[in-house]
Amino acid sequence: MRTFRLIIACPDRVGIVAKVSNFLATYNGWITEASHHSDTQSGWFFMRHEIRADSLPFDLEGFKQAFSPIAREFSMQWWVSDSAQRKKLILMASRESHCLADLLHRWHSGELDCDIPCVISNHDDLHSMVAWHGIPYFYVPVVAGCKEDAFNRVTQLVREHDADCIVLARYMQILPSALCQEFAERILNIHHSFLPSFVGAKPYHQAAQRGVKLIGATCHYVTEELDAGPIIEQDVVRISHRDSVEDMVRLGKDVEKMVLSRGVRYHLEDRVLVHSNKTVVFD
Amino acid sequence: MRTFRLIIACPDRVGIVAKVSNFLATYNGWITEASHHSDTQSGWFFMRHEIRADSLPFDLEGFKQAFSPIAREFSMQWWVSDSAQRKKLILMASRESHCLADLLHRWHSGELDCDIPCVISNHDDLHSMVAWHGIPYFYVPVVAGCKEDAFNRVTQLVREHDADCIVLARYMQILPSALCQEFAERILNIHHSFLPSFVGAKPYHQAAQRGVKLIGATCHYVTEELDAGPIIEQDVVRISHRDSVEDMVRLGKDVEKMVLSRGVRYHLEDRVLVHSNKTVVFD
Amino acid sequence: MRTFRLIIACPDRVGIVAKVSNFLATYNGWITEASHHSDTQSGWFFMRHEIRADSLPFDLEGFKQAFSPIAREFSMQWWVSDSAQRKKLILMASRESHCLADLLHRWHSGELDCDIPCVISNHDDLHSMVAWHGIPYFYVPVVAGCKEDAFNRVTQLVREHDADCIVLARYMQILPSALCQEFAERILNIHHSFLPSFVGAKPYHQAAQRGVKLIGATCHYVTEELDAGPIIEQDVVRISHRDSVEDMVRLGKDVEKMVLSRGVRYHLEDRVLVHSNKTVVFD
Amino acid sequence: MRTFRLIIACPDRVGIVAKVSNFLATYNGWITEASHHSDTQSGWFFMRHEIRADSLPFDLEGFKQAFSPIAREFSMQWWVSDSAQRKKLILMASRESHCLADLLHRWHSGELDCDIPCVISNHDDLHSMVAWHGIPYFYVPVVAGCKEDAFNRVTQLVREHDADCIVLARYMQILPSALCQEFAERILNIHHSFLPSFVGAKPYHQAAQRGVKLIGATCHYVTEELDAGPIIEQDVVRISHRDSVEDMVRLGKDVEKMVLSRGVRYHLEDRVLVHSNKTVVFD
Repeated sequence: MRTFRLIIACPDRVGIVAKVSNFLATYNGWITEASHHSDTQSGWFFMRHEIRADSLPFDLEGFKQAFSPIAREFSMQWWVSDSAQRKKLILMASRESHCLADLLHRWHSGELDCDIPCVISNHDDLHSMVAWHGIPYFYVPVVAGCKEDAFNRVTQLVREHDADCIVLARYMQILPSALCQEFAERILNIHHSFLPSFVGAKPYHQAAQRGVKLIGATCHYVTEELDAGPIIEQDVVRISHRDSVEDMVRLGKDVEKMVLSRGVRYHLEDRVLVHSNKTVVFD
Repeated sequence: MRTFRLIIACPDRVGIVAKVSNFLATYNGWITEASHHSDTQSGWFFMRHEIRADSLPFDLEGFKQAFSPIAREFSMQWWVSDSAQRKKLILMASRESHCLADLLHRWHSGELDCDIPCVISNHDDLHSMVAWHGIPYFYVPVVAGCKEDAFNRVTQLVREHDADCIVLARYMQILPSALCQEFAERILNIHHSFLPSFVGAKPYHQAAQRGVKLIGATCHYVTEELDAGPIIEQDVVRISHRDSVEDMVRLGKDVEKMVLSRGVRYHLEDRVLVHSNKTVVFD
Repeated sequence: MRTFRLIIACPDRVGIVAKVSNFLATYNGWITEASHHSDTQSGWFFMRHEIRADSLPFDLEGFKQAFSPIAREFSMQWWVSDSAQRKKLILMASRESHCLADLLHRWHSGELDCDIPCVISNHDDLHSMVAWHGIPYFYVPVVAGCKEDAFNRVTQLVREHDADCIVLARYMQILPSALCQEFAERILNIHHSFLPSFVGAKPYHQAAQRGVKLIGATCHYVTEELDAGPIIEQDVVRISHRDSVEDMVRLGKDVEKMVLSRGVRYHLEDRVLVHSNKTVVFD
Repeated sequence: MRTFRLIIACPDRVGIVAKVSNFLATYNGWITEASHHSDTQSGWFFMRHEIRADSLPFDLEGFKQAFSPIAREFSMQWWVSDSAQRKKLILMASRESHCLADLLHRWHSGELDCDIPCVISNHDDLHSMVAWHGIPYFYVPVVAGCKEDAFNRVTQLVREHDADCIVLARYMQILPSALCQEFAERILNIHHSFLPSFVGAKPYHQAAQRGVKLIGATCHYVTEELDAGPIIEQDVVRISHRDSVEDMVRLGKDVEKMVLSRGVRYHLEDRVLVHSNKTVVFD
């Protein structure tokens, strides 16, 4: 069922819901899902509606024009999307296959509603797996000393394929600031720890060293500061003294792919709103 | 902060949200929380609003009168409650103290917003614990052959104390049908299994017999059919071959009290709507 | 690191551990993992040792001969396996790909230590996915009225490929009794409910009907009675009123594949002992 | 059932288990529980046995004497305890009652096998609750500038009551180094975050600030470095954007008391072994 998704963030005040729901009711809009959130601390209000497209008398452009006056009146940050316009998501990976394989399978079996114009990797290991899914694979080695060239190539590929968002499926390289800014709140990363614990390299080794009893994974938007962007989703799994670092890596893989796939799903369905480096996730 | 809670269930159609939010906006109502749910299978719509009482120009009675025309127009099943009118909750227990002690502590430390006019038990074991909390304790033995007398006494106590709801905190007796009907959707029970598995007596023994790897607890509204009422909340805990039935009982206690306290909280805050023997819980 | 795994179940009595650990110490066996369990209810004792093969002076056959007298003395049910002799595991699937894809990926990335001589399915849908992994795929349609022929073919394939165990990765067909008996405690199934709730067909529909707040999955050994075999592993995921049956199916898939992969791993590593239709899992 | 608990940590080598189990078998010891762990990284071996006291021909002192030669031979760090000699556990609290009430209830209902000679607090708020349980309550205010006096009094009380261990049930004061050293690996604290995240004050505020999706609690042994001691147990609970800091505090309380009670139980049953600032927990 084709829907429009209307996402709004604005300073809170009386009458927003009434105005928006009146607007929708006036045009006979059939709301299939509605979520609100008032953040009392920041004084901001967040709202997401999903409306059957066939119940409304306009297309996406018409929706935007009709709604604009309300948006202006309430100083809204807002967007509306059409579920029929599938987002173009570029996957980036390194040598580890678990996150990539999981996302590709979900996409292939129809669970992830998006297009995947290409996969970019700094290694060639996963080429054949991607090819089987009928997706172009670009091998862009990242060599110390020539990183700039590599990321120029990456940026070029991302632009050529007109990406809406980028998912770092254990890409293990730090993206240049310019790309982070160009795709602000549109690059998702999976970090293999329960942030803010164990930022940076080898988090499972750090976890083993500290002797924690649970390990986790964090899906977050990438910002220029490493592992510090707004958190979209997290989860953990229990470990014990019996688990070596290798066991943690194995157990962690399952958490990583689950957390990343949930984060990607939320993003694709326009369920994530960012405010003050935190997220509202209307799941 | 004092709020009014407006709870609505009605057949779904376009314009409900607009009508209700307009009503609230017209009177300048400050919505602190709003939740909607459209059940596509049954075609019903469910809604809960929490509105600051001091933002509205009327008291509870005035609210009811003002809202009634809308309720009629949309054939709503609805109620509005005032957070300042604390619900009167009667606790019933047997000999096991864990659920009773947990609820009493939450009430005593201000976490459960209700009055507890009395505790009723078919044993005298927990008398002193209840007395320490300054709550009257009624010992009503349930003797085989004279159960009717006992439940007449229970019914009388419940009425005398003007109870809004009853919580069976491991009461272990089956209430008479008449009481179940009089307090329909207002008697909460905790069953020590993950329903619908292991209905009836000794669920942990049943679980041990079947060799399950998780045990659970279920908070549900009591209906005349044993352990078959609408489920409000459930949770589980992992067990292994190392756990004897005694271990399961011990581990299960923690799940029972957590699940019951969450269910009670949802009920007290008017977060639970029942439809077709299922619940919508706006947590 | 190559290990021998010694698995023992016997009536409990004083001296078993001493005898077995003496045996291993005498031959200078380097124990990398040891687990014991005394079941006080049944009076049985269960034990699993993992010993570095290179620390012992004999091969698997030699081990068996040397240990036999002890086994007889204590009336042990026992086996010893060599981690270097990878089990031959046949996968059976139907049209749903999530469990099969998950197991194939784990196998392909080296996480599951086994051989997969072939995949058998009653549909041809997953042929290409299996072929990419370099594994033979046998399409054996199961047609009402000719089921016997189909299962004769399945049995023949299983024997030809010399299978050690069979994993029903959402196969959705009931295996004939003869095959269940021939592969007793060697056929693993994933049932898409938290057993013993919702036995049989369409468990997610049953769960939606009952209004449970968690859904689950169960990995168990197949016996002749449907969904009643010894449970190896279970897990659950939280749902709410917002989740339709379709959502449950989607959320359930992740639980199914996680639970099945854990069960398969336990089986492959000889961690599961069955007694009185229950399992001891030395994880 | 009275048991002896034999706990051993020593450098790993072939023959330890054989030696120990032979020792026990020689004296006809009935092992009710046995756990081993080889830490391949550190090369240490850890073992815990629980043996029926009535199956052995000696008392605790006799056990120690008989076992000493083996302990010397293998350079063991070891102890043996008698379940009939209940540990003396002193509880320290501040104003928050949830952890204290939970532990007291578990003790009162027979779930925690220990004596509680007294409760010490820097506030008088929980006096009556403790008194109801029949336990002496010492109010020792900690005033800025006179902290040394206060902790001298605490130390004196701890010694007078011959404490085996101390549990900081949200005590919220930093103990002096001398006391930490005197009771090394015998002071348990509950920290209201998932360590190592959010060390120090106001962890829920820190968590809200960072926008995490799970909050947790950590039970650890107290060392001189704040919140850096060996972790015994941890757990988490899911939160969302809907949860204010006050909600986190409320939800966190349940995790704190569960985690602390599990940690205390493990400690009381001699299930925790500390090595290199990490724990082996034989649960």
